[in-house]
Amino acid sequence: MKRTIFDDQHDAFREMFRSFLRKEVVSEFPKWEEQGYAPREFFRKLGDIGVTGFDIPEQYGGAGPTSYRYLMVIGEEAALAGVSLGNYQASSGIVLPYLLMLANEEQRARWLPLCARGEAVLSVAMTEPGTGSDLAAIRTTATFSPDGDHYVLNGAKTFITNASQATHMIVAARTGEPGADRRGGLSLFVLDTTTPGFEVGRRLDKIGLKFSDTCEVSFTDVRVPVGDLLGTEGAAFDYLGRNLPRERLAMAAGGCATAAAAIAHANSYTHERQVFGKPVASFQNTKFVLAECVAELAAAQALVDHAVLLEETSELSAVDAAICKLHCTEMAGRVIDKCLQLHGGYGYILEYPIARLYADTRVSRIYGGTNEVMKTIIAKSLSR
Amino acid sequence: MKRTIFDDQHDAFREMFRSFLRKEVVSEFPKWEEQGYAPREFFRKLGDIGVTGFDIPEQYGGAGPTSYRYLMVIGEEAALAGVSLGNYQASSGIVLPYLLMLANEEQRARWLPLCARGEAVLSVAMTEPGTGSDLAAIRTTATFSPDGDHYVLNGAKTFITNASQATHMIVAARTGEPGADRRGGLSLFVLDTTTPGFEVGRRLDKIGLKFSDTCEVSFTDVRVPVGDLLGTEGAAFDYLGRNLPRERLAMAAGGCATAAAAIAHANSYTHERQVFGKPVASFQNTKFVLAECVAELAAAQALVDHAVLLEETSELSAVDAAICKLHCTEMAGRVIDKCLQLHGGYGYILEYPIARLYADTRVSRIYGGTNEVMKTIIAKSLSR
Amino acid sequence: MKRTIFDDQHDAFREMFRSFLRKEVVSEFPKWEEQGYAPREFFRKLGDIGVTGFDIPEQYGGAGPTSYRYLMVIGEEAALAGVSLGNYQASSGIVLPYLLMLANEEQRARWLPLCARGEAVLSVAMTEPGTGSDLAAIRTTATFSPDGDHYVLNGAKTFITNASQATHMIVAARTGEPGADRRGGLSLFVLDTTTPGFEVGRRLDKIGLKFSDTCEVSFTDVRVPVGDLLGTEGAAFDYLGRNLPRERLAMAAGGCATAAAAIAHANSYTHERQVFGKPVASFQNTKFVLAECVAELAAAQALVDHAVLLEETSELSAVDAAICKLHCTEMAGRVIDKCLQLHGGYGYILEYPIARLYADTRVSRIYGGTNEVMKTIIAKSLSR
Amino acid sequence: MKRTIFDDQHDAFREMFRSFLRKEVVSEFPKWEEQGYAPREFFRKLGDIGVTGFDIPEQYGGAGPTSYRYLMVIGEEAALAGVSLGNYQASSGIVLPYLLMLANEEQRARWLPLCARGEAVLSVAMTEPGTGSDLAAIRTTATFSPDGDHYVLNGAKTFITNASQATHMIVAARTGEPGADRRGGLSLFVLDTTTPGFEVGRRLDKIGLKFSDTCEVSFTDVRVPVGDLLGTEGAAFDYLGRNLPRERLAMAAGGCATAAAAIAHANSYTHERQVFGKPVASFQNTKFVLAECVAELAAAQALVDHAVLLEETSELSAVDAAICKLHCTEMAGRVIDKCLQLHGGYGYILEYPIARLYADTRVSRIYGGTNEVMKTIIAKSLSR
Repeated sequence: MKRTIFDDQHDAFREMFRSFLRKEVVSEFPKWEEQGYAPREFFRKLGDIGVTGFDIPEQYGGAGPTSYRYLMVIGEEAALAGVSLGNYQASSGIVLPYLLMLANEEQRARWLPLCARGEAVLSVAMTEPGTGSDLAAIRTTATFSPDGDHYVLNGAKTFITNASQATHMIVAARTGEPGADRRGGLSLFVLDTTTPGFEVGRRLDKIGLKFSDTCEVSFTDVRVPVGDLLGTEGAAFDYLGRNLPRERLAMAAGGCATAAAAIAHANSYTHERQVFGKPVASFQNTKFVLAECVAELAAAQALVDHAVLLEETSELSAVDAAICKLHCTEMAGRVIDKCLQLHGGYGYILEYPIARLYADTRVSRIYGGTNEVMKTIIAKSLSR
Repeated sequence: MKRTIFDDQHDAFREMFRSFLRKEVVSEFPKWEEQGYAPREFFRKLGDIGVTGFDIPEQYGGAGPTSYRYLMVIGEEAALAGVSLGNYQASSGIVLPYLLMLANEEQRARWLPLCARGEAVLSVAMTEPGTGSDLAAIRTTATFSPDGDHYVLNGAKTFITNASQATHMIVAARTGEPGADRRGGLSLFVLDTTTPGFEVGRRLDKIGLKFSDTCEVSFTDVRVPVGDLLGTEGAAFDYLGRNLPRERLAMAAGGCATAAAAIAHANSYTHERQVFGKPVASFQNTKFVLAECVAELAAAQALVDHAVLLEETSELSAVDAAICKLHCTEMAGRVIDKCLQLHGGYGYILEYPIARLYADTRVSRIYGGTNEVMKTIIAKSLSR
Repeated sequence: MKRTIFDDQHDAFREMFRSFLRKEVVSEFPKWEEQGYAPREFFRKLGDIGVTGFDIPEQYGGAGPTSYRYLMVIGEEAALAGVSLGNYQASSGIVLPYLLMLANEEQRARWLPLCARGEAVLSVAMTEPGTGSDLAAIRTTATFSPDGDHYVLNGAKTFITNASQATHMIVAARTGEPGADRRGGLSLFVLDTTTPGFEVGRRLDKIGLKFSDTCEVSFTDVRVPVGDLLGTEGAAFDYLGRNLPRERLAMAAGGCATAAAAIAHANSYTHERQVFGKPVASFQNTKFVLAECVAELAAAQALVDHAVLLEETSELSAVDAAICKLHCTEMAGRVIDKCLQLHGGYGYILEYPIARLYADTRVSRIYGGTNEVMKTIIAKSLSR
Repeated sequence: MKRTIFDDQHDAFREMFRSFLRKEVVSEFPKWEEQGYAPREFFRKLGDIGVTGFDIPEQYGGAGPTSYRYLMVIGEEAALAGVSLGNYQASSGIVLPYLLMLANEEQRARWLPLCARGEAVLSVAMTEPGTGSDLAAIRTTATFSPDGDHYVLNGAKTFITNASQATHMIVAARTGEPGADRRGGLSLFVLDTTTPGFEVGRRLDKIGLKFSDTCEVSFTDVRVPVGDLLGTEGAAFDYLGRNLPRERLAMAAGGCATAAAAIAHANSYTHERQVFGKPVASFQNTKFVLAECVAELAAAQALVDHAVLLEETSELSAVDAAICKLHCTEMAGRVIDKCLQLHGGYGYILEYPIARLYADTRVSRIYGGTNEVMKTIIAKSLSR
């Protein structure tokens, strides 16, 4: 089904990025996957083609305001190429917006050029052992030091993406009591990850997303300069929520991109693979399963494409984003599962991209707020 | 989620049509439903507000080219009001396009003004006992009469919507052999339903759609003037397929409209209804079920809205339409079933609109080509 | 899959009952369905073959303790024959057990012989407008009359099966305050339906189960003799719960019986029906769908068969019965829906048994306690 | 729900085996998993407690005919303990039956005592790159050597479980042409895995089942003594099918065992874990999801328990086994997925047993004949 959100510029960018992947990533990727991260140098290459500069003002070396559609193209092309750019997407898609939204002039001047050039790798540390989606339960503390020019961080976080590669990590910590509405007392800090007392702990062994380093981190008397407080002290709860719609839209778009890749893999596999003397693709079951997947994807894609346009005009509500995240990640789960089945035993072997998609996608129904949280958000909007 | 396909004109039309329904239909509807059809006079009222003139050129008293979005508005408002305009939708949405596409100048001058004024009620007779979706198997014959100015129809059709109310019925009949590709030899005729030999037989008792009269009809030596042949003799197979994308888009839009109505009913019912001392709406299960429905609908609606725009620029392919019909009718089935369950026992009682929606919607996965046929169409587009 | 719960005696009974249906019911059934109930005389015929005497002690003319398996056979054969014995099943399967459990000697002598001979048709009236599954909310009152030999019933009930045909109706009414645990103050009465002040109101128009008369009833100063109080005054809440496991087991068995009938219909239809020149049964999709249905049914049937044996040794817990009801009615919903789809357009026409099964089965996920109530019951058993 | 297939002896065995797991396996298991296999010594310990002797005649040191229920107990206890005994189950449950069924007296005397004592680890090599479930496509050859006392094996196999640990591997190879029915010309050999020319190739990296070594193997001029031909030359196609019902029953039982473990994990996790100030278990969604899982499992378990009894009386048909495999592995997929979701982010981390269950279970819908093959088998039994 023809998509209408891309114009010639997007198409040209897609072409360029596809060659970039082919030249710089595809052959290297198995090595990166084994070591569990992309080299820093790869971020600089991303900087060279400008994609780490999306949304960063031109005065800091960035590309200026950038349609989210470019990030969509990146996600779609990476999925089709069978590689993961999760590290980049987390850094530029999830974390950078906090800097853009909250950093003061001095901070912007310090950090944004690094980001634009691909020299900074960003990470964000919210979740703690035992808190899950419940931010109000955060117990990591940031105590204002008596000497007046820094805060001292103590605590531990878990499920931290990019932890071992990050140059800068945004840390949510408690600077005061939560108060009656359970929303107060949280602040954000931009931690230079070379600061003493910060330690990357155990790397979590996950079902999939092997390439993405997801670690526990700990803070032991970590001194963070006052100048690295991001935004207003005590206001983090609201900050953390503010970017969620876009993050969730990104997850929804990711669901569509991976489902599209799964369908492409299954379609091509079932045409090549013969059983009982004919291609798997010639069985009616194969046809029907693929057709169901195509239709499911088309609807989810239409939803996301529509949402992307709403987002650009600031008309995408938090509820809308929750709808997108819920629907598209559930869709991706169903579609990828069906496409794996069409691969037979090979679908279970990780050298086949479909197996990696299957293992990777499961968490998308959980992270960014579980899909149960999405339902809660949506339901709240249903007043009498 | 904000929809972007409607402008001020559509909104104004929606307002007008909503009042029309309130004034002219809602209170009459139970009576019509009992008798199984709307009075002819109602079609004339529809003519008065111009909706039977959609797409009919102005020279014949119509509104000229009309965005499909107006028909969508009609379907959405009817569903929300809990009434069915199936007879009108079949006549103007499904059958009229054949006249517009195929009638010659003389025929247009004869028929289109009647249609525009709401004086004609149209029906189309394709399916025969035993043929189902397989048009090539049609056995009703139209024999060219030796006297040279008419054809003689003989045969029987079934599942004919609007059969007892129609003033004109388009009949597909065999004028020659199917030939090697099984597509030849079929022709279309516009039958004046007062012609001797035409008989409306048994009205089929259906699970739902009680309002829509679905009958068997038979043709016994029915004389149709040569001038009422529609299009070229022998070319009907292709004609019948040509309007299918739009018909299927209409079914997809109908699925969304009814699902939206079901959600509205369930939302309001669960807020009013108390169990164990609190509103059903306050249970987490209710919230989650409704949220799932909202998300499912949002995606399907985005798909249809996107497809409607493609249709207007002639970019909607037959495959696209099949995707829409498959996805949206399956979605409607799931959503309406869940919304019924939230009504408890009342959901099973036909005086509650949700019960009628449930009974009505089941056939949408079957008619217009079963959803299995849709999958076959979609699968064909998946080449290596 | 071979079932092991039936021995030669059950098989012989099955044979006998199958001929009985063929001879006495199948040809009459359409007439009964149109009028909405079976004639009283039919109950007497059931009495003649002994099936109204199940579980009634021999001294009252019954068959003595009777394995539930005989009722299962009846349900299975009726479903296969495409007829409904809902009236009988409600009377003998749902209501009679209350008499057997609670009637005192004098009452047993009065009522049981009538039941055994098929002269009594039983009904039970619990649900009230607005109470649903919440028995504690019952507001119909039974006031002990100052003259000392009767109670006076006032109130209204709804969703009452067999209402218009019943000779005796067990009515749950409030004789006192609910008390702190919300379970007190309810009593049961056996109402002779010819008593003045009792009225059968509106017959509810349902999606299906057209044969089963489901009505509203009202009680206006209805005098019920003290001797027709069933069990102990104020103890009804517990009574009503006590037979629920067996009722739910019966619904589970009904789910399996109807699903089995649906599969049989679909299998035979798809073998007869040709599309595109070959039987529908020869398409892989048809095969796979039927295979899925067969497997789903096999598991549900194994569950029910196992539960029936546990019930006979009093080892079937309320939770077990809830599991059976939940699982088998959900299964029936899925299977019957799929089997309908295999019928194409004919599946929507009520003269085809599959259409009636579809319309009938929807309520089974709701009555006898909604499946949401079943989940609540099951979840309670999951302690840490 | 009470299960009735276990008596006191089974219960005592369960107790014994549970302690054995606790003492000998649970603490060692992470080490085994990392190295990818259990030490040979562990098989000898299994021999000491007698479980490698199941079904082996007493004269060869075995336990004599053994109810399959003991193997079920082993599977259930292993799943609950969070360990995998896949290597043992493959050896004793899948491969040993071939020896018991086909070995001649001399062979039995050679091999069975080794098996009984846990000194033999068995493997079977059927699948080849490109053949999948299509045995007739096997291309590995066994050429009868001119010197008359051995065959020479050449070819390659893939997806071979236990490949690196096996002492003996049953190899299916072509000794003649397939013939018209595509079933001829295949023979089985019992290969001593120390024979020159046999090589274990690449270990396949799978989504789950990390503990089970699944490898490619190759045969280059491997000499197999004539005395190690198993059964009759050319008859292997039928042999391979003969044990499939029991293998599939085992997979079905495995599906139930793992689903039961998943529910136990989710139940206990959701009681411990707090969100928004209360246990996850207290949310209605958690309750309902767990209740659905409990009901799904109960039905599948009833099916398997019933099938096990039929198997013991040789009344379990190939179709029955296909039904069990299809239903129970699909059920396990759904249940484990839902139970994972209840764990939130932790469900994605492999140190939680639910994550391993999720990754492991996916292949069960594929191996032992894909579930699509099961549907084909079931559908064949549906004659008119």
